[in-house]
Order: sequence, then C-alpha cells, then structure tokens
Amino acid sequence: MRIGVDYYPEHWDRALWRQDAELMRETGVRVVRVAEFAWSRLEPEDGRFDFAWLDEVIELMGERGIDVVIGTPTSCPPLWLFEAHPEISQADYSGQRDLPGIRGHRCYQSPVFREYAGRIVRRLAERYRDVKHVIAWQIDNEVEGSFCCCDVCVGKFREWLKRRYGTLEAMNAAFHTDVWSGDYSAWSQVFPPVKNHPMTQYNPGLILDFQRFASQSTEAYVAFQRELIRSIIPGARITTNSWFCEHLPDLYSMYRELDFASYDNYPSTVPDGSSHALHLDLMRGVKRRNFWIMEQLSGLPGCWMNMGRAPQPGMVKGYALQAIAHGADTVVHFRWRCAVGGAEMYWHGLIDHSNVPGRRFKEFEALCEAVRALAPADGSRIESKVALLFGMDNEYAFRSQLQAEGMYYMRQLADWHKAFTALGVNVDVIDQNADLDGYGVVVAPTMYVRSETAARSLHTFAERGGTVLLTCRSGVKDVNNNCIMAPLPTDYADMVGAHVAEYDALGADSARVRFGDEVCRITCWADILESDGAEVVATYLDGFYAGAPAVTRNRYGAGKVYYFGVYGEAALCRGMAERMLKDAGLAYRADLPEGVELVSRTNGDARYTFIFNNGPKPAALDWEGKTLALSPYALRVPELGDFEL
Amino acid sequence: MRIGVDYYPEHWDRALWRQDAELMRETGVRVVRVAEFAWSRLEPEDGRFDFAWLDEVIELMGERGIDVVIGTPTSCPPLWLFEAHPEISQADYSGQRDLPGIRGHRCYQSPVFREYAGRIVRRLAERYRDVKHVIAWQIDNEVEGSFCCCDVCVGKFREWLKRRYGTLEAMNAAFHTDVWSGDYSAWSQVFPPVKNHPMTQYNPGLILDFQRFASQSTEAYVAFQRELIRSIIPGARITTNSWFCEHLPDLYSMYRELDFASYDNYPSTVPDGSSHALHLDLMRGVKRRNFWIMEQLSGLPGCWMNMGRAPQPGMVKGYALQAIAHGADTVVHFRWRCAVGGAEMYWHGLIDHSNVPGRRFKEFEALCEAVRALAPADGSRIESKVALLFGMDNEYAFRSQLQAEGMYYMRQLADWHKAFTALGVNVDVIDQNADLDGYGVVVAPTMYVRSETAARSLHTFAERGGTVLLTCRSGVKDVNNNCIMAPLPTDYADMVGAHVAEYDALGADSARVRFGDEVCRITCWADILESDGAEVVATYLDGFYAGAPAVTRNRYGAGKVYYFGVYGEAALCRGMAERMLKDAGLAYRADLPEGVELVSRTNGDARYTFIFNNGPKPAALDWEGKTLALSPYALRVPELGDFEL
Amino acid sequence: MRIGVDYYPEHWDRALWRQDAELMRETGVRVVRVAEFAWSRLEPEDGRFDFAWLDEVIELMGERGIDVVIGTPTSCPPLWLFEAHPEISQADYSGQRDLPGIRGHRCYQSPVFREYAGRIVRRLAERYRDVKHVIAWQIDNEVEGSFCCCDVCVGKFREWLKRRYGTLEAMNAAFHTDVWSGDYSAWSQVFPPVKNHPMTQYNPGLILDFQRFASQSTEAYVAFQRELIRSIIPGARITTNSWFCEHLPDLYSMYRELDFASYDNYPSTVPDGSSHALHLDLMRGVKRRNFWIMEQLSGLPGCWMNMGRAPQPGMVKGYALQAIAHGADTVVHFRWRCAVGGAEMYWHGLIDHSNVPGRRFKEFEALCEAVRALAPADGSRIESKVALLFGMDNEYAFRSQLQAEGMYYMRQLADWHKAFTALGVNVDVIDQNADLDGYGVVVAPTMYVRSETAARSLHTFAERGGTVLLTCRSGVKDVNNNCIMAPLPTDYADMVGAHVAEYDALGADSARVRFGDEVCRITCWADILESDGAEVVATYLDGFYAGAPAVTRNRYGAGKVYYFGVYGEAALCRGMAERMLKDAGLAYRADLPEGVELVSRTNGDARYTFIFNNGPKPAALDWEGKTLALSPYALRVPELGDFEL
Repeated sequence: MRIGVDYYPEHWDRALWRQDAELMRETGVRVVRVAEFAWSRLEPEDGRFDFAWLDEVIELMGERGIDVVIGTPTSCPPLWLFEAHPEISQADYSGQRDLPGIRGHRCYQSPVFREYAGRIVRRLAERYRDVKHVIAWQIDNEVEGSFCCCDVCVGKFREWLKRRYGTLEAMNAAFHTDVWSGDYSAWSQVFPPVKNHPMTQYNPGLILDFQRFASQSTEAYVAFQRELIRSIIPGARITTNSWFCEHLPDLYSMYRELDFASYDNYPSTVPDGSSHALHLDLMRGVKRRNFWIMEQLSGLPGCWMNMGRAPQPGMVKGYALQAIAHGADTVVHFRWRCAVGGAEMYWHGLIDHSNVPGRRFKEFEALCEAVRALAPADGSRIESKVALLFGMDNEYAFRSQLQAEGMYYMRQLADWHKAFTALGVNVDVIDQNADLDGYGVVVAPTMYVRSETAARSLHTFAERGGTVLLTCRSGVKDVNNNCIMAPLPTDYADMVGAHVAEYDALGADSARVRFGDEVCRITCWADILESDGAEVVATYLDGFYAGAPAVTRNRYGAGKVYYFGVYGEAALCRGMAERMLKDAGLAYRADLPEGVELVSRTNGDARYTFIFNNGPKPAALDWEGKTLALSPYALRVPELGDFEL
Repeated sequence: MRIGVDYYPEHWDRALWRQDAELMRETGVRVVRVAEFAWSRLEPEDGRFDFAWLDEVIELMGERGIDVVIGTPTSCPPLWLFEAHPEISQADYSGQRDLPGIRGHRCYQSPVFREYAGRIVRRLAERYRDVKHVIAWQIDNEVEGSFCCCDVCVGKFREWLKRRYGTLEAMNAAFHTDVWSGDYSAWSQVFPPVKNHPMTQYNPGLILDFQRFASQSTEAYVAFQRELIRSIIPGARITTNSWFCEHLPDLYSMYRELDFASYDNYPSTVPDGSSHALHLDLMRGVKRRNFWIMEQLSGLPGCWMNMGRAPQPGMVKGYALQAIAHGADTVVHFRWRCAVGGAEMYWHGLIDHSNVPGRRFKEFEALCEAVRALAPADGSRIESKVALLFGMDNEYAFRSQLQAEGMYYMRQLADWHKAFTALGVNVDVIDQNADLDGYGVVVAPTMYVRSETAARSLHTFAERGGTVLLTCRSGVKDVNNNCIMAPLPTDYADMVGAHVAEYDALGADSARVRFGDEVCRITCWADILESDGAEVVATYLDGFYAGAPAVTRNRYGAGKVYYFGVYGEAALCRGMAERMLKDAGLAYRADLPEGVELVSRTNGDARYTFIFNNGPKPAALDWEGKTLALSPYALRVPELGDFEL
Repeated sequence: MRIGVDYYPEHWDRALWRQDAELMRETGVRVVRVAEFAWSRLEPEDGRFDFAWLDEVIELMGERGIDVVIGTPTSCPPLWLFEAHPEISQADYSGQRDLPGIRGHRCYQSPVFREYAGRIVRRLAERYRDVKHVIAWQIDNEVEGSFCCCDVCVGKFREWLKRRYGTLEAMNAAFHTDVWSGDYSAWSQVFPPVKNHPMTQYNPGLILDFQRFASQSTEAYVAFQRELIRSIIPGARITTNSWFCEHLPDLYSMYRELDFASYDNYPSTVPDGSSHALHLDLMRGVKRRNFWIMEQLSGLPGCWMNMGRAPQPGMVKGYALQAIAHGADTVVHFRWRCAVGGAEMYWHGLIDHSNVPGRRFKEFEALCEAVRALAPADGSRIESKVALLFGMDNEYAFRSQLQAEGMYYMRQLADWHKAFTALGVNVDVIDQNADLDGYGVVVAPTMYVRSETAARSLHTFAERGGTVLLTCRSGVKDVNNNCIMAPLPTDYADMVGAHVAEYDALGADSARVRFGDEVCRITCWADILESDGAEVVATYLDGFYAGAPAVTRNRYGAGKVYYFGVYGEAALCRGMAERMLKDAGLAYRADLPEGVELVSRTNGDARYTFIFNNGPKPAALDWEGKTLALSPYALRVPELGDFEL
C-alpha cells in the first residue's frame, strides 16, 4: 500500500520542482502522476516536441525513489490542433462544433485526432520506455461515451447498427419503429440521439444502442492507446481513470485488457449519511481484484460550480484509508498543490495557493505515516460472500427513461450496499454477467434490461441453494429496450413465485408497509404483487392496494428468492438484509454503530479487519470483549495493534 | 352512447389482431380508431402503398360489428420523406430544422408536405370510401398553431399581414411600432416571433397577429384535408382531435365545417380538487352540441416525463362516465394496450404490457356495461341557463404577457365554472362572440382583448334583463393588443357602473376582502374600484386601498352587471355565483357535497340527472327526499333506476 | 433641484403634445428627456430625415419654460438598417446574429453601425445646437459591455490583447495557460468567452480581460458620440444613463470626460429592508459630485417579467426625494405616461394608460411642490468622513467565479453601506483607486483582484491614522485573475496583522461567532484566521474552527485595520461600524429607528439635514430635543422648517 500525488510541473516555476520533490520524499510520497494535460507543453507546435522539462521532473522523482505514472495528455489537445483541424471537436446535430479552449470536447472517433493523439502517445512511450521508475501509464482522463454527432460518429454508428442488425427490417423490428412512423427505409436516415435533447422523446431502442455504441467507441479508443503503448513497452502496466459520469463506458469490458482499474474518488465533504464505499467496492469488482485511486479528495471542491465545504478534520486522511480498506492499494491524491491559474483553480489540492502546507497537508503526512503502519497487510485481499450485481444496460436504460421521481439505478445499489455493509459483511459489487460461484447472497436490484446470462446464472445460483434478492422494475425490458410482453418480473417470475398485478408510480409520494412487526415507509414505486406460491414478507398499509404484498420470499430449488417491489427506507432494507444473511447462514454483526464500516482483508491465513468510522462523531464498538473507540474518520485494524490510524 | 378504443394494429403481431378484435367485441367495444400514426406502414417508400394489413384489420372489426374511425396519419411523416425533403420540417430563426424521428414537427404550410400528405389521405379515402362501418375520419392528430420560421411560413405571414393591413403605415400604426424604433419600412423586415424566445420581448401586436395567423394556418390545413376527404366521400363524418395545448388553434372556426368536435381527455390521476368538467363543457360549446372523446384516460400517464400515479379505482370508468354526462356521446379510450416499444411506451393503455387484462380493464368492462344501462338517455342533450364565455384572443394575449404570477385566463374560467357547477346548475362554455339568447346568467371573465361583437351582445343581454359577471383585466386591449386609452374596464365601464381607479399586481401575495358577513382571501390582482353608481358588493380590508370596492353590482337596463376586480378563493366565487343565480331567478342546489357534479340532460320531455362523485371519498346527497349514496368516481342517474354506475 | 419627466412624443397623437406640455408646466416639470428611442421616426429611411415633429415638441417645451435633454436614439437602430446591414447585430460563437426587432442588440464595434449612428447623432446635434433650452445630451441608453462574438469584436479583442501583452508568450504566462493545454500559439486562436456559456469553464484571466475589453469598448463608443456632439456644440453638457447591469462598464473611466453622471433609479416597490441609497451614493461617487436621475420609478414595473406590486403611497414622491437627499439634483421620472403599445407597455409611467392622472400623479405634483420648498438647499453638497471602496475588477472577477452560494460583491457593499448609514453618517462610495484624503474611516470589502494603487493608498491611509476595514476574499488574485501565491490576505497581510490559515465555503450554511458579549450569525464564508499580532475581535463558536478568530483589529502605523473574515448579519456589521467610528473619533447617532436615513448636505456654512423614512411605517426620532415624526417615505429637512415633504 502506498500513497501518491498528482503533480503538474508545467504549472510551476522550475525553481519549485526540486523543492516539491524534496518535500514529497520527506512526506512519504511514493508515486506521482504527471503529464496528463500537458500536450501543449510537450508539443508546442505541430511536430515540434519538448520533453526536456518532463525528463527533468521524472529524473528528480527517480533520484528520490519516487515512482512515476505518465498520463497520456490526449484529453486536452492543443489549440493549434483545434485551429488546424476543427473537425476533431465534437459536433451537435446542426454541425456546430464544441468550443475549443475549455477541456475535453475532442471526438475520439476523429481519424485526425487519432493520428495526432497516437503520435504524442508514441513519442512519450518511446522516450520513457526504459525509465525503470515509470511504473504505469494512464490513458487519457476520465473517458466517457460522448453523444457526438460529427460525420465520423454518425457514419460509425450506422456501420455499428448494420453489423448488429444486418438489415433495416431487422433493425426496425428491434426498435419497434412501428410507433410514430419511425421506420427507417435507408441507413442514411439513422441519426444519433442529440446531446441535451430530451432523451424521453427518442426511440428507447435507438438510445440504448447508441449508448452501447458510445461505450464501445470509448473502449476502442482506450484499446488504441493501450495497444500503441504495449507495442513499444511490452511490459507496461496500463490503466485509465474513471468516475461515475453521465455517459459511463462499460467498465467491465473497458478494463478487461487493462492491467488495473483506477478510480477518481471524491467523497462529499458534507457528511450526509451516504458512503463512497459502494463505488470503491464497485471498482474493486471491475477486475475482481485490488485497484488504484488515481485522484483522491484533498481539499475543497469547486470549479464548474461554487466552492463546497472544507473537508472536516480527518476526511483527507480517513477517506484515503477507507479506500485502502476496500482494496485501493495505491491512493494518489489530487493534487499536490492548488493551481493558481486556470478554470479549476478552486478544486483544492493538499497545499493551498499560498504554498504554505496547512491542516490538510498535515493530515496527508499522517496518512503516509499510517500507511507505513499498514505494511503487514500488504498483499491482502477482500473476500466476500455477498455480491451486489451491476449491469451497464440497466444503468443506461433506466437513466434515459426515468420511471418516477427519485428512481435511480445507482440509488438502488447504494441502498442495498448500505443495508449489507451496515451489518459488517464484505460486499462485492460485480458485473451482473459474472460468475456467482462462492457467494451465499446475491442482490440483484432492478434487473431492468434482459441479460440472458444474468438470468441464467441467478436461476442456477438459487437452484443450488443461494439466497437472491430481486427488486421492482426487473424483467421489464428485452435486449432492445422494449417491454417484454409477459407478467412482471417476466424472466424472473418463476424464481420469484409471484407476479406484479399492477404498479403505482409513487415518485415523491410515499406509503407504508408492514414488515414483521414494524411499519416502514416506502417511496418511488409500488409493485402490487400477487403470490403464485411465494410467502408474503411485507404488505401495503396505504392506498387502494392496502393489504397487497409488497415483498415476497420464495423457495426456488435449494435456495430462496426475495422480491422487493418498492424503494424502502434504510431500516427496511437493513431488516431485509439481516433476513437474507440468516437465510444464507452467514455471520454478521447487528450491533455496528451508524457509519462504522468494517472490511476484512485476508492474506493466506492472516486476517485484517479494517474498521472505519465514516462519520463526524466519535464511535465505539465491541471488539473481542473490549471497547474499541474511533475518532471521526479514523481507521483501526485491531490485528495490527491497539492504535488508531 | 358508446365506448371505443384507440388501436394500433401496426404495433402488434398479426396473430394478435383477431384475438384483440374478439376481446373487444366481447367487452362491448363499439368503435375503434386506427391508422393515426401509421404513414410509414401505409407508404413504406415514396409512392409504394400497402393497405393490405389495414384492410384486414378493418374487416376483422366489421365482422364483429365494430365501427372504425380512420385517423389520417399525417402527424408523423415517414423518415424517407424527411430525408428527401428536409424542408417539410419546422425551422427556427437561423434556419435550423427540427429533428426528424421524434413526432410532429412537420410544417403544415410546406407545399411539399401538403402534396405528400394529400396523396396519402386521398389514397385512404379512396380505399375505404365504400366501407360502411368506417363511420368517421379524424384529421391528423392534436394540431396546433406552431411557431415555425421556415421560408414558407415567413412568406405566408407577411402575405397575411399585407391582406390585413394593406399598407406598412397601417400596420405600423396598429402595432404601435413607434416604441423602440420598431417601424417596418418593408414587408421583408417582418419576422414571426421565435419559438422559445421570451414572448415578452416582442411587440404585443405582432405576437397576437402571429397567433391568429398560426391558428388560421392550422385551420386551413384541417380544411385542406377535410375538403379532400369530402371530395371523395361526400357523406363522410369528419373531425379532428384537440387538447388544450400551448398554441391552441381557434376551436370555433376550426370546427365550423367539421361534423363534430373531439377532445383528448386526460384528467389528473391525482385528486386535486379540480375538475375536467370545464374542458368537457367547453368542447360541447364548440359546436354547441354533443361531441366525442377521441382519447380517454386509461392508465398511468408517462412518456415525455416520468410516469404519474396509477388511476385510482373508479377513475377509468368514472371519468368516461363524467365525459358522457357532459355530452361526450362517444368515448374512445387511449388505448387498447400499452405499446411495448417507442418513446410513448409508458403512456399506459387499458391492458398492460403483459397483455394480461387487469384491474383497469375490468373497470373498462364495467364501463361498457354501464353505458348499456344509459341507453334510455341516448339522444338527450344538455341545456343550460348559465353561459361562461371563452375568447381565443383573450387566451392568446393573456398568455403572452403574463400580468402577475398565477394569473391565467384558463384559471379564471376554471374558478367560475367550478363556482356555478358546485351549485348543481348546467353550465355552457361558449365562444364570447356567440348568441346569448336564452341564458339567464353570463359569466365573462377577463374580457381582455376588444371584441366588438362580444361587447355589444353583453350590453344587449344585460339591457334585456340578463345577469352578467365581468372580471379584472377586462377592456384592457384593443384588437391590436394595445392598451385602450380610457378608464378600465373601458368598453364595459358603462355597464359596470364603476371604473378602476388603480390596480395592484399581487401575484403570489394575497389580501382580504369583506363580502357580506364573510372575510375572504383574494390573490393575483386587485382592481381598486370607484363606483359611478354601482352598489359595492365587497371591499378590501388590506393594503393602502383598504375600504375601496373590490366587487360591485350595477343595474343596467333591466339587468344586473357584477364586476369582480380580483382572483378570489373558492368560497368567494361560489358566494358570488349564488347571488347571481338568485338575481336571475334561477334554481340551484346549495347543498351539494364537495366534488359532486350534477348535469341534467333532456330529451324532449324526458330528463336525466347525471350525478357524478368526482372525488376519492364516498359522498351522499339528498334526492327527492331520499339519501343517494355515491362511491368514489361513481355516477348515478336516478331517473334510470336506483343503481350506481 | 428640479424635477423632470421622460417623454415619448412619438408614441402619441400630435393632438396630445400641447395638452401634455401644458400639464407639465402646471405641475412644475422643469425638464423633459426626448428622442431616446426614436431613430426610426427621425430617419424613416436611409438618409431621409424627419425632424419636424421633434422641432415642434421642443418648441412646445421651450414656450413653457421647460428644458430639454436629447437622448441620442442609437440604442434601437431602425429595421431598415438591420435589414441592409445584418452585421450590425451582435453575434454568438457560431455567427448567429441576435434577433432584430427587440431592443439593443446592436454591436457598438461595428463600423457600419458607427457610421449610421454617427450620422443621426451629428444631424441631431447640428439641428439643435442653437436651441438654448436644450440643456443636455444623453448618449444612447444604458450601455453595457456586451459579450459579442462578431468578427469585428473578435478582431478588436485580439488587437487589445496584443497591445496589452505584446507576445503570445507573455499572454500565456499571464493567463496560466499551462492548465489544460490552454496555450495559444497564434493570435487567431483567441476567442472571447461566449454569452450564456458557463463562465466557470473559461480561463479566469481571459474572462477578466474580456470584461475589461468590453468595458473599454463601451467607453470608446460613448467617447465617440461625446466627441462628435462636442465637435458640433462645444459647450454641450453630455451624459449617459447607467444602471447596475450584468456587464457594467467601468463607471469611473466612462464618466471621466462626461459632464455629469446619470442613474436610472428603480427601487423595489416591495419594502424589503434594503435601500437604494447605496446606488445613489455610488453614483454620486462616480464623479465625486452631484448627479442626475435620468429615469425614476413612477409606477408598477413590468415588461420582460410579470408586473410587480404597485408603489406604496409615498414611494413615488419619497424615492425621488431620497435621491435628491443623496445628491441627485435633477430627478427625471420614467415616464410621463404609460405606453399603450410595445413590449414595455406595463412598465408604468406617472399617468395611467387611461390618461387620467391618478394617485401616483398627485404624488408627483406634491413632489414638484416639495422640491420648490427645498430651494434654499440648492447648490449644497454631501461631505463624508466615511468612504466605501468600489472596484470594477472585483465585481467582474467575483461575479464570474462565484465563491460560494450567496456571495456577491455588491452584497458586501450593501451590507457595509447599511451598517454605516444606519448610524446616521454620510457615506461616500468611491473608486478603490481614488484619493482617500480627508476620510476617517475607509471600508474596503473584498479587495479581490490586485490593485497596486488601492493597496498603496490603503496602507498610507492607515499609516497616517485612518481606520480601515478589509473583508474576506481580499488579496486573492493578481491583476491577471490568478491566485497570489502567499498567505491571504497577501498584499494586505501586513496591515491586517493576521493571516488566513484556512477557509470554509459555507454558502447557504451558517455558523455563530462571539462578538463582545453578543452571539451573531455569519454565513457564506469563514476565513479561519491566525493572528500575527492583531487583537481578536470575534471568534467562531461552531465547526472544527470553533475558537479561531473570525474578525481581528490591528494597529498599523497611526491607524487601525480591521479584518472581517465572514459575511455577517446586520447587527454584527452595525456593531463593527460603531466600533470603527469610535476608533476614528467620528460622531454618529446610535438611536436612529430602522429605515430612517439621514444625509447632511452643506453649502458653505449652511447645513441641511435630509431625514428620510425609508419604510412602510411611521417613524419618529429625536431632533434637538424635540420629537420629529415621519410618515412612510416622507422627508424632513429640519433646517428648512417644521414641515414634512
């Protein structure tokens, strides 16, 4: 486990480089990421390169035992390139190009962009291939599947559809273009959905396919850089850095051929009861192994929006340790120092604009120290008996047709992740199509778009004795984003042993259900169930469906299948989780204080329990008969000794 | 009276057609509307037509005694037409065309569009002219007066203005272009107001004229299809279907040459105290005779927006019966079954996506049954002594220059409609320029834009003994949307016997008035009146105008004229209505429970009282000495027997 | 002191002119502004001029002893000009021109526009140069620094940058284009920030420079008209009229060569505790002498938005008198009568649309009468020992990078202006770079962008014994809008005797501070201070920085320097102001009732105390042993006698 920083030498007078490197070394920084946005400094004019400054910085780091990650600078092409080739910008329907001089906005598909991007990446790889302490490469920055309507994208999307459907007839059938005279009689009539145009007005099949296309295009772009680097540096360790953006590419396929996954981790600086642990577990699940944080919260956010609240004492250190607990074995902080210029100057780094290290930097020093104390746990991994399924198609399709106010796919994931982690169990968040062997409980929220693989493996898992949870809006859509013409939850109805007689889109309204002896509040959605043999777990108390089942449990094969037809408050989800863990015979702790997160990591026989207080108040819990106290945002690993990190 | 459904055979496997037709017959469906959006299936390529599938469906219906309405499919031109002729799309100021592949968006004025639309309509009319059970034709779908800036529209608008004003000088004078150097020195300088640009920035005369032009263009388009169909099928019964859209065409002139009016009726599924009865009475007033519902609420709404709440039990049936009570002798439900594809898949039909008829379908069956019980009332009509005036110019002009927060023309209509119907009297909503003979009370809210006809007939009506209500913002504008230079309410000041000394734009603020012994709350607007002989009915209790009259009553000729200078809460409007009915010597019921609506229909000597409980709670009222109980959304017609529908 | 009206003869039938002029004379109107928007009536076709109507109106006024101000009509070019030369419209990035037919929207930089504007201005000046009672000229209307992207503006901006920076290297360094590969390698890559595009996405240096450029372009345009008029009428008194618009030009440089400053004064008609006195003092500070109101509130506002509330009784007269109290020796009311046509018809004038003078006009008559009573105070001026500094760069830069919710530069000014005026002292609002000689207290809120002049003069002022207040976000930026790399408040840290260890962006959140014995609430921002010798005046009570200083006071030279690290509620600011006045040995009144404003004007030895009740309730205060009562919005000047105005 190690700590790093994102560093932008090009922002600073050369005089500062040595001073910064020296302070990094003293503090315990072990890795720096550089070069990410520096294209205009590396290639000031078309074909004229300047690597001298980067050479110097990399050497300064190497001399101090600090490893280097090179970010390819392709996220921000230089203005000379935009000027010479306006066609590298993304375009809207009318052909209007995005403004240059902001950030991003290049079209990955543009052959001209690819040519120039390829050249700068090649030059970087060639120049640093033999530098031993250049230990990894980050491709571009926070790539996402853009809704670009440039000629190239339009053409490629049409080709993609041709390959997928073969004929217009097949595509028309798949998209149900029988509605509103939407039939295509020529490929040239196909056009991508347009950014900022209400997605609800488009054919749902077209939208979902475009999102898949955009994801695959992004993956192809990443693969293009990956192969290029690999062709020059066969042993290079290559990644890209992700965040949960609007047009998320499919993380599972994008990272398949990359060496490790990286996440940009910016938990909220306002304690609101939510936890970034979901994202951490999700990123660990991408390659089902430990991952990196490539950008970690270091100070006040602020750039495109107002500045946000200052991180509370403990957050800078604690959120890095939380990430480590969940498998981020390298945590790179964004960034060493606040930029003093540029639009992002108020996205704060560890050191303030004044260049006087302050409270946050002191915490960072303590973090480096803490990580040294964690050394015995190096190489340990997280094993889990509970899996939470994530499906890209569900996210795409659910987002583009909002079912009711407040209903988000990611919210469901967060609710269930919280319900289980509050019971002190490890949770894996994995691809819905992944192998489920070895799990005892599988939570499959909103299996909205048909995945035959997922449906098959959930059936098998239950048959063989597993405990499964399915939730409302499962089995709604076929693979083309059309409604399936069968009683909900369609593909899952047999497992569930119940069906949806009717539903009510509650949105911001709420209703009550009886769950055991408790009355709980639900919101957003109400599936009005009819049992086909399943046991009723909760019933509605309000509305015209008072008395109808809201939650059921069914025996299926050797296993048990729960169906949860609503969005429930935390207590209800937690109660459900407890039931399921009992059903599966899995141990858990019902006595964890609010906000205390417990992850166990193992290394052969060794076991390390990472106990993190994710909250603004001191907490205490029982640990092997003793009381273990935790300051706000503090971590303890009892197996390593009786001290707080 | 009869029930129908909107049916889209083109959405479904042919295998379902027979099954669907069979179920319709069993259920009691007597009419289906088809073909409305099916252009791309009727003419898959330019000039290649395919009517075979429609022939089959129409035949299936005929075989089962089900009548057919054909909707001309011109609302959604096929993509091949957009591709070959992009100029058929609406354009904005910069010439940018609307996106194809959504819905609507064709420009009615485009000669190319007219040519193609004419051809498909002609083919349909020729093909089905002799099919006896094709009983009516619906032109296009929900036509509205678009703010299109294509070359054709711009040119036609200029021609329209030339015809209206003759010279630029006359138009400049009419528009008061003396403000802000707005003078036109050539017709080529005239441009329509641009969609989505704030209307408040335009010359009010230009906006109002453009709205009139847009309405007349829409009417001309409807007339174009009407004449075409009529030329082929001389006896065809022809309509179009309307809803209260933003750019409403003038319903009175649009429907003049059509055979009957049709309304798309989607009451809110959340009970909020308002009633769709206003719209129903308004649609009956369009041709002053009974009308059709061409689309009737059948399930959860949802498409361009999130899904809304599920209809409460009773709503699917009850709102159809409410429409019938108010004169909708045919009610066609939208739609037989939820679409499983396309953007509108969540605008729910009677049968769910699962194709398993559920609760709503059962209600629909009960509705068909109920309508059979209403057969004795067939042919009955609604007669009313109370008229509520509607003026298109008022709606146009009031909407484009919002006077104060919360002030809407339709809100005034709704308030007064509710005030009178709550007293159990029939209310006609009619064109402000219509004949007022036979009425006892005429409510004329916000006679904002000058209509000489209306002013004359209101004067005559009052002179001859009628009771009239006028409200704030009457007499404000001349026919060119300029303020009239005389004390408000200008054209009506003599009738009113009072004038507006000053006004206050309350917006969301409120104030109190004393009305008899009661203190009531008013909002939005306060006309501070000075009596010129009128009796004071209510006075302000707040603000610098405390003590000034807010409502007056004047004797004018043999009649009485009330002036209501505010927006009042329900109790105040109801109290006013009661006074006016007393003044006019009209019978009413003061004891109706909240939400109970009473419409009397007559057929020669026979009288049928339709009593509808428009609310979520059971209600009871006294009926000829007995207590008559009503379930939520239930209808009773005591003259037909002691049962609930 | 005198009262005038804005008059638009071109809106009215000629028959009304004489009648209006007669009523003006009777009422006591002494000046009218005409011609401002009348270009299309003065030049109906290219090169054909019609001054006859204006001649007649000016003569009618002259005959009645009414002076005239001519507004140059260049704000609204005629449509024939837009048609012949579309390039005179402002453009966006894509070249799309603003719609003609609205208002404004011409590009000041367009050479074609300049040619035509110059010609009409020249013709007006030539025609009326010898008319004695044409006493002043107003250039254009409410000029502002537009974000225009037409070719001319783009070219001029590039030239401006070339002149400023000389080389691309220097500009790149100044803008810190090292961020996000923002380096310019050719001037042709430079583009202005685009209107309506989020400013937060642009390089802050580019934005600030563009705002300066836009301001200077506006100033140059005003200078162009000024020189033209002056060349024809050497002795002309020339002004332009300003309001606090979004893209405010630098008032100090714009008015430098103009003869007097003019302000369009529209206080809110809803009493909300704020005072327009800040704007009045600011406008008086522009040239540090008395100024004009060129447009004064006369009725309900309403045009681009809904109508607002009617002015309360007393407001029409009182707000004019308030303006006079603060140095507006001429107050011109907007406008004589409501327009009956055009988009602005609901921006109400003194006389209603009816042309029947009502309550507001009666107040206006009383105002004219009151001003005659003020005659002895003619020629008096306001002297102040308290200065509040205003810096255009601060406003520009603070607005384009909102620091936290609720933080506005103008809000800080308003808070401190209110704090001091509530204590009955005169306050000058002056350019931050102005001479501070003669002041005892200088309040310098948010000295955000470096001004070496201001920093030097504040140091000198304090050294010599002055009392200074600095507030949070001072010393943040260098002249290029980059953060200064030193502990905040950087340039001021030595005076302050403390530095900002850290800060918290509270936004809408709040916290408490202890100030003496009081607990006060602060919001928006918290500078967490560390004293380097300064005395602590207030400390935080909440958050992780409880106990840290929030406000400090330092002795610097012979003076005292306060630093206020927060946004405070009124009581706190007032308490601070009281302390500072005590420190500076200045007299004040701590007993003024809420809303009572006291301005003293002097004329040699004579002193006149203008006491204004800026509130909806009667007020009373002690005056030389007697109780002085004030009606709402009434003024008293005790030195002129015991009567209320």
